[in-house]
Amino acid sequence: MTQTVGIIGAGLVGCLAALAFAEKGFEVSLFELRDDPRKVDPGNLRSINLAVSDRGIRALKYVDNDMAERVLKHVIPMYGRMIHDTTGTKQQSQKYGLFGEGINSIDRSFLNKCLLDEIDKSSIKVYYKHRLIEVAGLKGSSPTVVFSTDENKRATFDFDYLVGADGAHSQFRYQMQKSMRMNISQDYIDMQYLELSIPPSKDQESPFSIDAHHLHIWPRKNFMLIALPNENGSFTVTFFSPWSVMEQLKNESEFLQFFKSNFPDAYDLIGEDSLKHAFHHHPRGSLMQVEVYPYHDPSGRAILIGDAAHSMVPFYGQGMNCGFEDVRVLMELVDKHGADAFKLYSPSRRDDLRTICKLALDNYYEMSSKVVSKKYLLRKKIDGILGKLAHGTWWIPLYTMISFRGDINYSDAVAREKRQSRVLKGIEVGFYTGAILAAAKALHWWKNK
Amino acid sequence: MTQTVGIIGAGLVGCLAALAFAEKGFEVSLFELRDDPRKVDPGNLRSINLAVSDRGIRALKYVDNDMAERVLKHVIPMYGRMIHDTTGTKQQSQKYGLFGEGINSIDRSFLNKCLLDEIDKSSIKVYYKHRLIEVAGLKGSSPTVVFSTDENKRATFDFDYLVGADGAHSQFRYQMQKSMRMNISQDYIDMQYLELSIPPSKDQESPFSIDAHHLHIWPRKNFMLIALPNENGSFTVTFFSPWSVMEQLKNESEFLQFFKSNFPDAYDLIGEDSLKHAFHHHPRGSLMQVEVYPYHDPSGRAILIGDAAHSMVPFYGQGMNCGFEDVRVLMELVDKHGADAFKLYSPSRRDDLRTICKLALDNYYEMSSKVVSKKYLLRKKIDGILGKLAHGTWWIPLYTMISFRGDINYSDAVAREKRQSRVLKGIEVGFYTGAILAAAKALHWWKNK
Repeated sequence: MTQTVGIIGAGLVGCLAALAFAEKGFEVSLFELRDDPRKVDPGNLRSINLAVSDRGIRALKYVDNDMAERVLKHVIPMYGRMIHDTTGTKQQSQKYGLFGEGINSIDRSFLNKCLLDEIDKSSIKVYYKHRLIEVAGLKGSSPTVVFSTDENKRATFDFDYLVGADGAHSQFRYQMQKSMRMNISQDYIDMQYLELSIPPSKDQESPFSIDAHHLHIWPRKNFMLIALPNENGSFTVTFFSPWSVMEQLKNESEFLQFFKSNFPDAYDLIGEDSLKHAFHHHPRGSLMQVEVYPYHDPSGRAILIGDAAHSMVPFYGQGMNCGFEDVRVLMELVDKHGADAFKLYSPSRRDDLRTICKLALDNYYEMSSKVVSKKYLLRKKIDGILGKLAHGTWWIPLYTMISFRGDINYSDAVAREKRQSRVLKGIEVGFYTGAILAAAKALHWWKNK
Repeated sequence: MTQTVGIIGAGLVGCLAALAFAEKGFEVSLFELRDDPRKVDPGNLRSINLAVSDRGIRALKYVDNDMAERVLKHVIPMYGRMIHDTTGTKQQSQKYGLFGEGINSIDRSFLNKCLLDEIDKSSIKVYYKHRLIEVAGLKGSSPTVVFSTDENKRATFDFDYLVGADGAHSQFRYQMQKSMRMNISQDYIDMQYLELSIPPSKDQESPFSIDAHHLHIWPRKNFMLIALPNENGSFTVTFFSPWSVMEQLKNESEFLQFFKSNFPDAYDLIGEDSLKHAFHHHPRGSLMQVEVYPYHDPSGRAILIGDAAHSMVPFYGQGMNCGFEDVRVLMELVDKHGADAFKLYSPSRRDDLRTICKLALDNYYEMSSKVVSKKYLLRKKIDGILGKLAHGTWWIPLYTMISFRGDINYSDAVAREKRQSRVLKGIEVGFYTGAILAAAKALHWWKNK
């Protein structure tokens, strides 16, 4: 008999999970709190850009190779970071990959719509405007989900399996944890973000005012600005800072002055009117980290994936990639172990999810400060030389492992990086010792000449 | 104009909060997910006993002195711990207070019913079978709560203020934290509990088989059994252990053997049939700790109290007492600061709540192990002597401050205990040094005699 699965949340990860289960022959129902995003005014949706990298692509291809190609047609590859200095005149490119690899900018809501279009072509049943209000029967053989529908009615469904993919504030998680022992932590980071935009250029040659194939960063230690390209030539810009920095900018003119002095080129690119509008009307987003364990319920019939299981800060560009990888890892377990898959998922995935949450947090410091440090750049240079020599074998830089080598688990990547880091430190010590010895020799020679 | 307050959860803390707000002239509505517990079969309710101590009593009296007396009429005072040894033949009483103070055993559901009876006499509107599904408008001036009612209908209410008192798995907290930055941690402790019962004695003289005025403990290091008296002569018994201990008892006979060898007297008191029934039919409870911060939303219109804000393990007997104290502290702020009360509550209450959550966890070790250690008993003796000499001034034992001195904040109590502990350590060192010196002297005398 066909097994049924109910998936809660039709965001990116929920959609991919639905397609994956349908592909394996499950009868899939997908539930979404909101209306079909394709019907809704785009202004209401989160416009933040995402960077799809190897893990995300691997998962999409795992589910359906042709689908992956259709969905990924519209990405813009970014081959490195472009560092903008404080004068607004100098830019420095720092390549991401050693062999021309890039990460890929795409609009979140656009990607979501692409996945929903794929779902429409499948046998998956989609229920919009269904607010989850109860999850029951997890201790029995057939879990039940209860929704409050748009017309204030109660709708009840039974499934063999349930997948919660309803995001950082997951209602499914809230319901599920009531009948089991789930450890949860939710921590807000002292950081806000404000979204801005660089319009397409009026230039005939290219619609992009700045290089289209870089992730642009204005690193200013305590705060930073980043920009990711869109297909139409515009850039989605995000200003990150501690709350105190933003709160000190009490009025429009202070805000404009702050931007002009810290990001002079970005100030001109975004435009004064647009900055004014953002100051008054754009919401300040907050950033948090959610970690839970285990991800499955004891009966092995319900599981959390994506942000519902691990909400990370956006600084490693891995949130969605990791959520897509959740789907691939889970489906591989379903293939191999059938009904035991959910139970096996938690222990097998725990270290990797903890690792990437921590890396994401640490990378804020790298993006906002380290990218302009000489020591960091020297180390990165040696790291890169070794990486090129090794050509993906005995030496692989961390960024490459995380973003371009989805075949290496997050936790293995970090374990490997630790070993490499010890070697790098040794090389640095050797480098400085050599320099001191050379200087001493030179001094000796000069004295005795 | 009369201000309105909606209180979510008609458990102990929610009921007291409702009475307190009504007393201050607010128009109060109280919402409860379940049906009126007075209508329901008592078998469906949590039967666990509570120990009401000074903080709880103070809060009840703060709200209404007569009401407090009516409610507290049925408690059974317990003046100390009664330690049962492994042979089942020896019991040792360890007094709680220095001056005959006691904590008071009462049945949770009975206390809840008493408070609901008080509410029925007031102007408070009570809505049973109202499942909270949404909290909105916290950023505006008038927060809205939406419920799904028994008849699958949606009911919407607006209030000036909202109080979430819906327990450890608070749905109100879940809704509230979506629109603010609330840090949350939920940690399960590796411990299960199983409820048992000692029936009333058939003895004509007293219905109590063991001393009625003690909290009975069978401390066995890794696990323990406790018993609290009920008015009818029965005792509510709880077996606490790590999950692994319980899981190793694979069948009825292993379970009975375990009880017989570890708690021989309790085995006879509970009775074999009753133990068998519990093994097969009583659920294993889990224990967890929830901490959140802040407790209020940024608009100052919503707040969390009781277990919704701080769910602690039961080992200091302070969960309900602390929840009742929340109500008193909050109402004192309402008196003094009006609309700013909720905003002031969080910073003023934070240290105390963190302190008691930690104390509760630490006290498992005291109850299950330390109560039979000679060093602990010596220290307790000195602590008690000093406490008696000081008569509540310059020296107060920690247990006394927590359980009998609600005028001392939890955090102040622990800070004071730390100072006292240093002195006790000094006395101990002095004691041992003195003993060694005396022994050395005796040896010297013996050698030279």
